Amino acid sequence: MQTDRLLRQIEFIKEIDKIKYIQRRTKLFNSDRHENDAEHSWHLAMMAIVLAEHSNMQIDVLKVLKMLLIHDIVEIDTGDVFLHDTTKNHENTDEETIAARRIFGMLPPEQAVEFIQIWDEFEAGETNEAKFAKAMDRFEPLLQNASNKGGTWAEYNVDYQRVFDTAYKIKKGSETIWDYTKGLLDKSVEEGILMKQEEETLLALRNK
Amino acid sequence: MQTDRLLRQIEFIKEIDKIKYIQRRTKLFNSDRHENDAEHSWHLAMMAIVLAEHSNMQIDVLKVLKMLLIHDIVEIDTGDVFLHDTTKNHENTDEETIAARRIFGMLPPEQAVEFIQIWDEFEAGETNEAKFAKAMDRFEPLLQNASNKGGTWAEYNVDYQRVFDTAYKIKKGSETIWDYTKGLLDKSVEEGILMKQEEETLLALRNK
Repeated sequence: MQTDRLLRQIEFIKEIDKIKYIQRRTKLFNSDRHENDAEHSWHLAMMAIVLAEHSNMQIDVLKVLKMLLIHDIVEIDTGDVFLHDTTKNHENTDEETIAARRIFGMLPPEQAVEFIQIWDEFEAGETNEAKFAKAMDRFEPLLQNASNKGGTWAEYNVDYQRVFDTAYKIKKGSETIWDYTKGLLDKSVEEGILMKQEEETLLALRNK
Repeated sequence: MQTDRLLRQIEFIKEIDKIKYIQRRTKLFNSDRHENDAEHSWHLAMMAIVLAEHSNMQIDVLKVLKMLLIHDIVEIDTGDVFLHDTTKNHENTDEETIAARRIFGMLPPEQAVEFIQIWDEFEAGETNEAKFAKAMDRFEPLLQNASNKGGTWAEYNVDYQRVFDTAYKIKKGSETIWDYTKGLLDKSVEEGILMKQEEETLLALRNK
């Protein structure tokens, strides 16, 4: 019985190796190399350990780590969805739910249920743990883009207001990190690596 | 004060990005692509979550995760040491201690102390958590090599006995996983992707 459980768990462990091939739009710090989902998940977990004290609310750090380590596993089947993609739905889609059932479903049944619940809880973003985990997920690409002369902001013409609106979720998890983020975005505007819409319009007019 | 702490923590978070460039000898599952330390650390953390129930002793999973997520950060300064390298010392070297002090030392002082303690505890391998974490660290490359027609065993002529001796540490963390490992090594010998010394000698004689 224990052997059967272990065999299922090992098949799952092999399957999730595929997350290392899922490329994100964002790049490593000061780098031209794209980050993959395994590296991203590791970094978010480290950020959660280091920054947990700044959470607005008391959090169960173990649960936050579980959320962050598994949150992108569904992308093995669905691929990475760019944060600033305006056509794709960012909510927990049917496609993602099917992926979660297939991949987590490789585990022994009650463990599969536990993993799907943790993933659902993260996606819903309602609990203290999910709010803090989501804050980490939003915060990392901001730091990366700021270190990469605007990174995906520049590459995909994402303006200040859109970055601000997406980053705003950080406030729910941590007021302290949100205060820092606002400063980072203002600095990025000053440095000319993040544009406010009026500036973009002016620039477009000037280049006509 | 809180801002100063946060700034130190963010500098640390940026610094550890470099772990994504540290290549291991082992390769991804069924793959020719080398694994890096961030991907490896993510995978070990996932393994610990999934396999915790097989630990010989009661363990604090949060501590195990912290160990696994940070255990290779010193390699940013020292580089990866191959498990079957016979010239390099695998114990906690002076070089690694200096690296730990430099990198974890970027954090606020009491957090730096905590991280260095966790890393020391992992390296010493004495506590229940360290034993289980080390079992994960030994188990992953075995699974990878078995999926890669022998992987680093074949590439660096590591024979059954040496693999067995290094893998033996798994037993301290989990008898169940150790039983599985013995079977995996026997199967690898049968498949001809892991050689016993007498066979190697015979083969060498035959090829003379």
